[in-house]
Amino acid sequence: MDCIFCKIIEGKIPSAKIYEDDNFIAFMDIAPIARGHCLVIPKHHCRNVLDTPDYVAEKFYPVIVKISRMVKKAFNADGVNIMQFNEPSAGQEVFHAHVHIIPRYENDNLGIKMPSRLNVTISDIQEDAMRIKANC
Amino acid sequence: MDCIFCKIIEGKIPSAKIYEDDNFIAFMDIAPIARGHCLVIPKHHCRNVLDTPDYVAEKFYPVIVKISRMVKKAFNADGVNIMQFNEPSAGQEVFHAHVHIIPRYENDNLGIKMPSRLNVTISDIQEDAMRIKANC
Repeated sequence: MDCIFCKIIEGKIPSAKIYEDDNFIAFMDIAPIARGHCLVIPKHHCRNVLDTPDYVAEKFYPVIVKISRMVKKAFNADGVNIMQFNEPSAGQEVFHAHVHIIPRYENDNLGIKMPSRLNVTISDIQEDAMRIKANC
Repeated sequence: MDCIFCKIIEGKIPSAKIYEDDNFIAFMDIAPIARGHCLVIPKHHCRNVLDTPDYVAEKFYPVIVKISRMVKKAFNADGVNIMQFNEPSAGQEVFHAHVHIIPRYENDNLGIKMPSRLNVTISDIQEDAMRIKANC
């Protein structure tokens, strides 16, 4: 497979690695939106959240917690954004699962925020809940 | 504590719930940015990723995977965004840990995307990696 993140895991492409365990590595995003912006990825090649195997999923969030704390401390940040883009429609560009961790500061005007909220009724929301529950 | 999400967990405030297990619930965001926008939260009150206890962290991502798949299927979405805002500087508004799951479609122009990348050198990135590793 021609996966750039698999090549980083294998050491065939250099990266600025900050963490590694049996199942994950974390490294600096090569095109950061803020200093300290890094990625956590599973060593197991999967495309994104949708096809993440159970054994990876079970270990993913503790690594996200760990790296978030490290990044916040290292960069004296006020907060962190955690973002995962799954599929091209959601903004995914590299098709190996990865979670962005981005340090944030008061008034940094970084432009990561929630878009406008929709104008929906309680009944719309209940209908949407039923629709999702039907896919449990 | 006067936490709106704790009240939702306790059933003191109504919600359109889509999932519940021993440690988490998922429910529709009351002010969605897209139909199907929902939240996954731990029952254990914690503020955000930074103070998430280990036993919660170990079980969080499998629930995120499950709800992401349900939402994508229920709404015939092309993809999903997963976002967590930690601390006010990062956009957090409710101070009980929560992960947003948002269905996405090709050309939905929802406005969730990566801001502009910085102009940094490889040496800058290596320096940042060292800084984070020092906080391991």
